[in-house]
Amino acid sequence: MDSTTAQQLALAELVELAQSDLAQGWTERLASALAELHPAEVAGLLEGMPPEPRRATWELVPEDQRGEVLAYVHDEARATLIDEMQPEELVEAAEQMDDEDLAEVLDVLPADLTETVLTALEEDHRRRIEAVLSYPEGTAGRLMSTDVISVRADVTLAVVLRWLRLHLRLPPHTDALMVVGDDGRYLGKLDMGTVVTGDPDSLVADVMEPAAELARAEATESELAALFERRDLISVAVLDAEDRLLGRITIDDVVDVIREEADRRLLKSAGLEEEEDLFAPVIPSARRRGVWLGINLVTVFLAAWVIGRFEDALEKIVALAVLMPVVASMGGIAGSQTLTLTIRGLALNQIADANLRWLLLKELGVGALNGLVWAALVALVAWLWFQSTGLAMVIAVAMMLNLLAAAFSGIAVPIILHRLGIDPALSGAVILTTVTDVVGFLSFLGLASLFLL
Amino acid sequence: MDSTTAQQLALAELVELAQSDLAQGWTERLASALAELHPAEVAGLLEGMPPEPRRATWELVPEDQRGEVLAYVHDEARATLIDEMQPEELVEAAEQMDDEDLAEVLDVLPADLTETVLTALEEDHRRRIEAVLSYPEGTAGRLMSTDVISVRADVTLAVVLRWLRLHLRLPPHTDALMVVGDDGRYLGKLDMGTVVTGDPDSLVADVMEPAAELARAEATESELAALFERRDLISVAVLDAEDRLLGRITIDDVVDVIREEADRRLLKSAGLEEEEDLFAPVIPSARRRGVWLGINLVTVFLAAWVIGRFEDALEKIVALAVLMPVVASMGGIAGSQTLTLTIRGLALNQIADANLRWLLLKELGVGALNGLVWAALVALVAWLWFQSTGLAMVIAVAMMLNLLAAAFSGIAVPIILHRLGIDPALSGAVILTTVTDVVGFLSFLGLASLFLL
Repeated sequence: MDSTTAQQLALAELVELAQSDLAQGWTERLASALAELHPAEVAGLLEGMPPEPRRATWELVPEDQRGEVLAYVHDEARATLIDEMQPEELVEAAEQMDDEDLAEVLDVLPADLTETVLTALEEDHRRRIEAVLSYPEGTAGRLMSTDVISVRADVTLAVVLRWLRLHLRLPPHTDALMVVGDDGRYLGKLDMGTVVTGDPDSLVADVMEPAAELARAEATESELAALFERRDLISVAVLDAEDRLLGRITIDDVVDVIREEADRRLLKSAGLEEEEDLFAPVIPSARRRGVWLGINLVTVFLAAWVIGRFEDALEKIVALAVLMPVVASMGGIAGSQTLTLTIRGLALNQIADANLRWLLLKELGVGALNGLVWAALVALVAWLWFQSTGLAMVIAVAMMLNLLAAAFSGIAVPIILHRLGIDPALSGAVILTTVTDVVGFLSFLGLASLFLL
Repeated sequence: MDSTTAQQLALAELVELAQSDLAQGWTERLASALAELHPAEVAGLLEGMPPEPRRATWELVPEDQRGEVLAYVHDEARATLIDEMQPEELVEAAEQMDDEDLAEVLDVLPADLTETVLTALEEDHRRRIEAVLSYPEGTAGRLMSTDVISVRADVTLAVVLRWLRLHLRLPPHTDALMVVGDDGRYLGKLDMGTVVTGDPDSLVADVMEPAAELARAEATESELAALFERRDLISVAVLDAEDRLLGRITIDDVVDVIREEADRRLLKSAGLEEEEDLFAPVIPSARRRGVWLGINLVTVFLAAWVIGRFEDALEKIVALAVLMPVVASMGGIAGSQTLTLTIRGLALNQIADANLRWLLLKELGVGALNGLVWAALVALVAWLWFQSTGLAMVIAVAMMLNLLAAAFSGIAVPIILHRLGIDPALSGAVILTTVTDVVGFLSFLGLASLFLL
């Protein structure tokens, strides 16, 4: 891989070339290409590699760039990289990182290593990190940067400008300065645009935004994501319970939260852990996923037990065994559509008591309408296949019942789970398909036992 | 609902109160509360309502705020609001909107209304909108704002500052100014921090960032989302093929793209359309979802047909009918775990030819390991239930085979779909469960026919 072309390549091609360089032992060439790449790209490259080449490539990343690369690596792969580092290397990397990134890294370290890194940092840096680490994971306090520029309300813009000029550089993404009172209380924000375009003689108090959005240190990541997304923000002030300014959260960290939330929702729906690394080794992967398979096994044996209650009917009419998956499966599909919409509505906070009845009636209507259409078609196919009017009628009614049950539980299951404080994205689908399997088998085989035997 | 308390409420409570105000005919009280709310909150409130109250509430939003509210409403609900507006109202709303928001609104209007709105706009505004509209939907050109401040490279920072002071206000989220040459070609960006803290006598050319990130007008939304997320950007310049500066894209619009992409992925996995509104009426909802049910019906009849090939075995051993869903279902769950990871890996661009073999072997390993564990357990349960060693052995082998097939197709199906240019998030799960159903029934019933009859 050539260092000049490396910068124009898509990630997958980069992975391709890096692995071929490694395979051919061209480590020097790869090392110089890595040194030229943006740390974000190096992070992507490492994430796109199995453990062995990932380790080899990480060894080739220049030590003075590792901190920056680690900051860009997503949670799931970060731990595997840190495992490879010596304490001295970690300290060097820590010195290059922002507060919030370093806090994330320290989180996954064993306690003694955290201590080593913290004591090696400069007094000031260490104190800032310790402040951030004192807030629980997943809160605004943990996500904030304490590297903030704050100004007084009683000075003029000219003074602010002169004072800013004393800084060599502003913290990244400074779209506004924070205005604080004598007692450290947050008063509002002063837009950088105003600093530049405003009349130099005007007072900060007169041109600042007093009622700007803000976040409390204990706000959750999802609340922050909703706030930033709704209000199109770049940064917000983080305050403690007494309105004192603690730090600032910027959109780039919130973008990571949004991505991680979406990711978590997707992975959870398949019973995967949020930190699942595509390139994790076999045994831990198998163990993590096995739990989900075990839960599913219980529910599928419940369905099998329901079927077992109708051995008699199945023995007499073998067509029942052939057709029963149709009823169960159609219910599962229809139910998962309703479930997905309900889970999204809950996430967007759109489901209130006042509209619940409307929603339920609508979904039952959709279920009934699709039930009619597809029950008729399934009945026709069943009749053509097995030449039995009774069977055709039984499957049609069973299908109707199952689509209505699917619509009802597609709304009820996630809402009940949500009220119980359980995330419906994780267990909603399992419970729902258990319902549609059981109702599907029970109604089809039950009706057949009643009317066809 | 009281206008002062309204601002402190969570969205679901807001919906609750607004609907109770409507039900009791307190429209004036609701109208004054709406006038006090942030337009983003009004947007959320409207999205959380069924069609009837949504329409009634929309009527109460002050006309001079409708443009801003429309800009915050997500795509799925926006169309229902626009339908309610008179052409004059649309024109007034259009005048309050940013280029990129207005372009999105114009997209859903009938051609004659678009014409009416465009001709009513000021010359300058219209020309900007037409430029944005000339790019296809889903590209950087369509997402950009043409409201950009650009400066020359050969002036000093003092000149830039003086010149900025002539503006009453900067465009929102101006973290950097764009530097262009005499011919309109983009040269780089000048950080606002540098403008403020830099030496006033230094030349722009000497303090700008020449190799800053940029986007071509034809770049796709997902490429932009990846760029912003990877590089922690606030804004990028949008250029045409000749490097001329066309506009600027800011992170707030990209956050919407990221949210919509995640949403689309989630909805697609249940065969729902990306613009599905939780409160859409019954008939169109039923029609949209019916398509997916129809596709599923074909695949489940395929599975039923496979079962039908073994009527003979099913007639003789009724336990086969009871246990067959276990084999199929476990394969489906294991396969969907692999599928989810592969789809995510493809989205993150982590799957390259060089690591494909490693991945496949890993997933087969996970499948084999979990296959062994759960096959043993299932065999034990089957043996306890039906007291047949043959049946227990047959189900164990079938389960092993199906988990291996699930691992293989969890990797192969999405990769093949991706290479064919089909989004695996939509059809991957259907194809996968068809494979695991067919392999599950075929291996279990087939082995039973061979060894147990």
